[in-house]
Amino acid sequence: MGRSKQGEIERAAIHLFEEKGFHATSMQDIAEAVGLQKGSLYHYISGKDELLAAIAQQTLAGYVQRLADIVELPQPASERLAMAIRAHLEATAADREMMTVLLRESYAITSEQRAHVAHNSARYRDLFTQIIRDGMASGEFATADPEVAALVLIGSCNWFHRWYDPAGRLDLNRIADVFVALSLRGLEVPSAP
Amino acid sequence: MGRSKQGEIERAAIHLFEEKGFHATSMQDIAEAVGLQKGSLYHYISGKDELLAAIAQQTLAGYVQRLADIVELPQPASERLAMAIRAHLEATAADREMMTVLLRESYAITSEQRAHVAHNSARYRDLFTQIIRDGMASGEFATADPEVAALVLIGSCNWFHRWYDPAGRLDLNRIADVFVALSLRGLEVPSAP
Repeated sequence: MGRSKQGEIERAAIHLFEEKGFHATSMQDIAEAVGLQKGSLYHYISGKDELLAAIAQQTLAGYVQRLADIVELPQPASERLAMAIRAHLEATAADREMMTVLLRESYAITSEQRAHVAHNSARYRDLFTQIIRDGMASGEFATADPEVAALVLIGSCNWFHRWYDPAGRLDLNRIADVFVALSLRGLEVPSAP
Repeated sequence: MGRSKQGEIERAAIHLFEEKGFHATSMQDIAEAVGLQKGSLYHYISGKDELLAAIAQQTLAGYVQRLADIVELPQPASERLAMAIRAHLEATAADREMMTVLLRESYAITSEQRAHVAHNSARYRDLFTQIIRDGMASGEFATADPEVAALVLIGSCNWFHRWYDPAGRLDLNRIADVFVALSLRGLEVPSAP
């Protein structure tokens, strides 16, 4: 019971943070959205700063864990990179509000919690870079800088929530195909002239 | 005189919007940053909503104009695409605060002005897509969907302000080289098997 109310509060907060922005959302707004008095809301959460930090950390930890699992698979780097891109896009499509809040509002997270988020972001970048390095070692990939290449790919994936429309012209799979083709071919070792 | 005070107010507002966020920045904060009484500030600007909208529109219009000029050049599509990516990264590097405010806070722009921003964003995407279509027509590029491909490339460029460090390991030119190589190779027509 307490657990599900907690979840309901988090969903409501994510929705409000996405729609109005974190700063414009008050504890009163969140309380009203879940049918609680503001005083009762403090029984579940200590404040909206803590709530934003918790949401951001949970979301980011999910992305990191999925990517860490993919990195460890025995498949060739090109297959793992394709899986990594698809996993990112699928998670974003499954919860665009959450991703919007994470990517747009994370600057508002207070300093103590921010270190946690920065650490996980760096870990995500490092795991992506690792797949590219693996592909360079196996002769699958070539790039002048695997870390910048990882940031280029992560950037394109992180922008996806800004334009993805589930009711749009292309479904998620077709969109992911374009991402994967562009990324894999972009990293391919140029064929001898 | 009035013109330069206006510019000073805009710079101060961009700095505050970037640092504290748009919603957390008050007219009082902006007035203090430029050494004016809050009442005098209204002599120059009608409110922070209008200021954000004006800043976003100016910035975006600059990006659109530069890209429109590149699209019209006689060079092959691959060269124009490389120029488009470089122009985007250079403009972002030249004013990261402005780009952060544009990309992070544009959701806070009020409805009337938001249509303007949405129009220019769509125009930017269309111009990028046009270069890719030109390259497909000339046999330089191949992709299953030029519009999604444009959004993939724009996304990677739009994420650049989040991680670029002018004092970092690589200079802007080297970073742009990685973006361009990844993007051009990603769109290249696969060689016959």
